[in-house]
Amino acid sequence: MEKVRIGILGMGTVASGLVNIMSMNRDIIHSRTGKILEIDKVLVKNLHKNRDVDLDQSKFTTDANEIINNENVDIVVELMGGIEPAFEYVRDALLNKKHVVTANKALIATHGEELEGIAVENGVRLMYEASVGGGIPIINTMTNNLSANDFTEISGIVNGTTNYILTQMTERGIELDEAVKEAQEMGFAEADPSSDIEGDDAAYKIAILSYIGFGQRIGLNEVPKEGITHISREDIKYADELGYVIKLIASSQKRENEIELRVHPTFIPKTHPLATVKNEYNAVMLRGNAVGEVMLYGKGAGAMPTGSAVLGDIIAIAKGISSEAKEAIQPLTKRYQVVNKGYSQYYIRMDVVDKPGVLGYISNIFGKNNISLASVVQRYKHDLVAPLVFITHEVERKNINEALQEVRTYGNVLKIASIITVEKSL
Amino acid sequence: MEKVRIGILGMGTVASGLVNIMSMNRDIIHSRTGKILEIDKVLVKNLHKNRDVDLDQSKFTTDANEIINNENVDIVVELMGGIEPAFEYVRDALLNKKHVVTANKALIATHGEELEGIAVENGVRLMYEASVGGGIPIINTMTNNLSANDFTEISGIVNGTTNYILTQMTERGIELDEAVKEAQEMGFAEADPSSDIEGDDAAYKIAILSYIGFGQRIGLNEVPKEGITHISREDIKYADELGYVIKLIASSQKRENEIELRVHPTFIPKTHPLATVKNEYNAVMLRGNAVGEVMLYGKGAGAMPTGSAVLGDIIAIAKGISSEAKEAIQPLTKRYQVVNKGYSQYYIRMDVVDKPGVLGYISNIFGKNNISLASVVQRYKHDLVAPLVFITHEVERKNINEALQEVRTYGNVLKIASIITVEKSL
Repeated sequence: MEKVRIGILGMGTVASGLVNIMSMNRDIIHSRTGKILEIDKVLVKNLHKNRDVDLDQSKFTTDANEIINNENVDIVVELMGGIEPAFEYVRDALLNKKHVVTANKALIATHGEELEGIAVENGVRLMYEASVGGGIPIINTMTNNLSANDFTEISGIVNGTTNYILTQMTERGIELDEAVKEAQEMGFAEADPSSDIEGDDAAYKIAILSYIGFGQRIGLNEVPKEGITHISREDIKYADELGYVIKLIASSQKRENEIELRVHPTFIPKTHPLATVKNEYNAVMLRGNAVGEVMLYGKGAGAMPTGSAVLGDIIAIAKGISSEAKEAIQPLTKRYQVVNKGYSQYYIRMDVVDKPGVLGYISNIFGKNNISLASVVQRYKHDLVAPLVFITHEVERKNINEALQEVRTYGNVLKIASIITVEKSL
Repeated sequence: MEKVRIGILGMGTVASGLVNIMSMNRDIIHSRTGKILEIDKVLVKNLHKNRDVDLDQSKFTTDANEIINNENVDIVVELMGGIEPAFEYVRDALLNKKHVVTANKALIATHGEELEGIAVENGVRLMYEASVGGGIPIINTMTNNLSANDFTEISGIVNGTTNYILTQMTERGIELDEAVKEAQEMGFAEADPSSDIEGDDAAYKIAILSYIGFGQRIGLNEVPKEGITHISREDIKYADELGYVIKLIASSQKRENEIELRVHPTFIPKTHPLATVKNEYNAVMLRGNAVGEVMLYGKGAGAMPTGSAVLGDIIAIAKGISSEAKEAIQPLTKRYQVVNKGYSQYYIRMDVVDKPGVLGYISNIFGKNNISLASVVQRYKHDLVAPLVFITHEVERKNINEALQEVRTYGNVLKIASIITVEKSL
């Protein structure tokens, strides 16, 4: 019975999940793979900390070399997070011909290309299913199960923190600040939630998924991003009234010669499969030229789901470890231009002076900019200020921007409160 | 550049899809796998029929031996359907040490065990992703990506025909007969739709998924099944009113020492991810002890989605063809008892005589049988007959049956019109 020996860098939440699943499902994994997975060494900062895992004290070390230069270790699992020193450790492990599994999205989004090159040169595998979508097996589904497809679109809910916040705002009518505070108390948001609520986390993930799907590296600065910090209870209420829910969507679309990525709040029709994705759940919708639309749904974070994804990669490597299985993604030779056109339907909410003629005037400006309207909600409040809500038909974002520039100069418009992308029904 | 040579048994819809995808995505597949996939021979009944695929006439044959005994062929793809002669051809191909890919659910559900044994003995692979869920990569997701999990539940919508019919009945208020006729015209239902609408097709599929997830073969006669033939417009209307949609659900649950499978119409809460699965789409929800709930959604049938799944299996074999990759499922050693308890919430609709005291009398019978009620809809129509609708809390089906036996003897109950399982919200 072959043993596969594992060294783990870091002993935080995901690592505990991994160790617990390995112990809980030992027999099943053995029966499915014919291998015995064994933890050889675990890198920690503090040898004396009490840890809630079933591991002998002798397995802990504070010296990374006992893992990345340890000839007993077959697979190095990097769960430290952050770029330094994770990058050096992973690079050195690959150079030492060790397979590497990581859950580190920042590392892969920024240094993935270099690290994959090193893995291929050294005949080992670098796998990172857990870097996107927690337990959802989105990367391996694209590289393996659906590999017969030319993908044209990847879009979905890839940040559980913002999805939890938006769900609570929607279901209980609370404001953003309150929902953020709650998410922090529940452990779904960090003390500094900015990477989540400003869209950076989702941008990392969609850049990784674009590479997997389209074979082209995308710099993070090429991903236009907009977080959820400006989403108000009022927008959520209008969305509900018009048959939508607001979700933070990360998307990447491939067209003839171009790729377009975005992270942005989006109106999702209530009948769309993404609309039922609530709280900490994630979901990714793929469009392939053979399979059509496929959606994967599951828990986007947490010790056990993320541990499940890490262990899935470990098992994949363990199954192939006696052969020379290499399975790096082969980048396609065609290069695409990365564009930012924002062709979509839009929701626009503004505050206007409550008097006749204002709607007509603004509608004319939209018309001049080739923007046609799908719906308008106007409520005369017999007050000084009235809200005016438009949903447009599909149009490029620059037409919206040009129209709104003119709208802003119109004295009866007090404020343009929101501009949010609207997704079509499936 | 290594060539992988494919022989195809059958040239129907799925085979055309497969051939078209291979040609359309040739460059991408080559770039992803480093292999050239080549069709060597195709078994057809009629050499002179005009076919809408880009294949040289010389590749067609009416002699199966030119494929299963052809030393040039690496992978045999069985797309004939039915059990005979597909079974002999697949068996002989495996005995000749050829890998086999099939989309044949009837073959796998009835002869899977024997064929997998032959594949393992001969060091080749038998793959059948396309036998369940069309383009949805559910089998490979369980065997590979989520292989770190002990699965406890598999449930979902695995029959596109009935889902199309129920969607049309729900959205347009039409009756079953009309929806079936339409589905036939659209090509979503066969001339004889009984295998779909009576639940046999779904029973095949859940038996296969149970084996994949739980490692235990389940005979088709161990799957209690109930089709959609008795679902009326009235049940759909009550479902809608109470916040549900009706779907044909195939499910398999593993508990301490038992497994329970079912195929049956089910009330699904509108906020549940399965509720947004419409028309010809399928979706399967898995529950793993590490990953939690995961759902896969996509097209459950059609030439291109099913061809995508077949080609995914071909690529998986092609990638491993130079190594000795064997990846048969290792059945778990633990055996479970197959039970039929039907522990669930239930919707019960009956016609009663429209007079005071009837509801109280029936409620008492439920109470005596330990059935507590979650909701009751009663509408006095000031007519002779009034409908009475109950949704119960969770209870075993035998309690329901015993209570209804007593209810039937009560003179004021004219008819028990429907008993349908109700799914909880996620």
